[in-house]
Amino acid sequence: MGLAGLRIVLVEPAGPINLGSIARVMKNFGLHHLVLVNPQCDPLSAEAVKMAVHAKEILESAVLVTTLPEALQGCVRAIATTARVRDWETPLENPRTALPWLLEDPDTPAALIFGREDRGLSNEELNYAQRFVRIPTHQSYSSLNLATAVAICCYELAQYAAPPITPAPSGTELAPLDLVETYYEQLESLLLDIGYLYPHTAASRMEKFRQLYNRAHLQTKEVAMLRGILRQIEWALKTKGNDENL
Amino acid sequence: MGLAGLRIVLVEPAGPINLGSIARVMKNFGLHHLVLVNPQCDPLSAEAVKMAVHAKEILESAVLVTTLPEALQGCVRAIATTARVRDWETPLENPRTALPWLLEDPDTPAALIFGREDRGLSNEELNYAQRFVRIPTHQSYSSLNLATAVAICCYELAQYAAPPITPAPSGTELAPLDLVETYYEQLESLLLDIGYLYPHTAASRMEKFRQLYNRAHLQTKEVAMLRGILRQIEWALKTKGNDENL
Repeated sequence: MGLAGLRIVLVEPAGPINLGSIARVMKNFGLHHLVLVNPQCDPLSAEAVKMAVHAKEILESAVLVTTLPEALQGCVRAIATTARVRDWETPLENPRTALPWLLEDPDTPAALIFGREDRGLSNEELNYAQRFVRIPTHQSYSSLNLATAVAICCYELAQYAAPPITPAPSGTELAPLDLVETYYEQLESLLLDIGYLYPHTAASRMEKFRQLYNRAHLQTKEVAMLRGILRQIEWALKTKGNDENL
Repeated sequence: MGLAGLRIVLVEPAGPINLGSIARVMKNFGLHHLVLVNPQCDPLSAEAVKMAVHAKEILESAVLVTTLPEALQGCVRAIATTARVRDWETPLENPRTALPWLLEDPDTPAALIFGREDRGLSNEELNYAQRFVRIPTHQSYSSLNLATAVAICCYELAQYAAPPITPAPSGTELAPLDLVETYYEQLESLLLDIGYLYPHTAASRMEKFRQLYNRAHLQTKEVAMLRGILRQIEWALKTKGNDENL
């Protein structure tokens, strides 16, 4: 897919000027796929179109969805941007070192996720990504404008993509995010079933598992293996019961 | 002078939204000195101030002059930005390679010059600079928004001035290997028990799990969590049996 296949995913963007600027800078750097999760403004408003100048077609072809998982459907690699340095298990990386990873697999779509202008991405939303990028800024004013953050990331990606792309060390196939999602759901359901999780704590506990597994950059065959174990445990739980019944 | 002493010189800027965005991004990256040569709009208009958000002081302290030489007074080094690839004796350089030169002499002020939104800098204006930078863009739409060009240059300068600290996965404690080993043994024993592993394939299959988990750099509390799950599964397997026995 490379640069042209990369999705720029904006979660609940609210500023039409930002949307227009983002469309323009995407085209400037050879990106085309804009996905808007529950946008809070009209991507084809006069202000947005004016700022896009010769990139109106990117606003017109923007895909509108209601949830982040929909935006990521089919993606194998996802990086989320965040401004907050928080008590977080996964390190925040520099765009220059982390973003090229999105382009390493030329055959599958990847996503770069940006949060709301005023409060970024929620922890739950961050958990859909495998890596996290923070653009280093000055402590006196660390909050970047959304369009500026997108511009810097698109620029970094284009700088990396411009030289002939060296193919990634192949042989391993990263698992599609929706497959990983199915695993998380299956795991949560089993853990509730055996009393390891309780409904009121399930979400925060599952977040910790996601962080662990996202960090590992799960491969398709590994997800298959993990799901195989869950199936076998479910089967064992059922059978043990039946055994005693005989 | 370093980053804080660097002048951002805009020649005849006409867009208040751009001016506000530029003030914001300058502060974001630790720059302060904005010089406007014959500006075509009010740097303190409502639109500009709104876009500057918490960087209004940069608009307020902007120096207004009528000619480019005035803007460059006292400067020893100046780089001009240009989008045009023209028949020019001096090569157009990449921001990443050229901009750090502006920061090499810490004792004298330096300037980075940007042209008009619609037609950049004239040849005469370009002649005031010693070096020329062009941000590489895609051929389908090479014209960057002025504020975007400034943002990318400020970002590059800040990256050079303060090499990003690679954020260590801090606050987290990597699990001791013998603890991880105990987990692997417990997992293997359970998987044999429920018939997911067979004795003759256990070793090679366990190797795959080790690879996955090692990649995640497990933390002590995560191993505790994973072991907790295994204990709960063992307990559930036992209990389900007993339930049926009652």
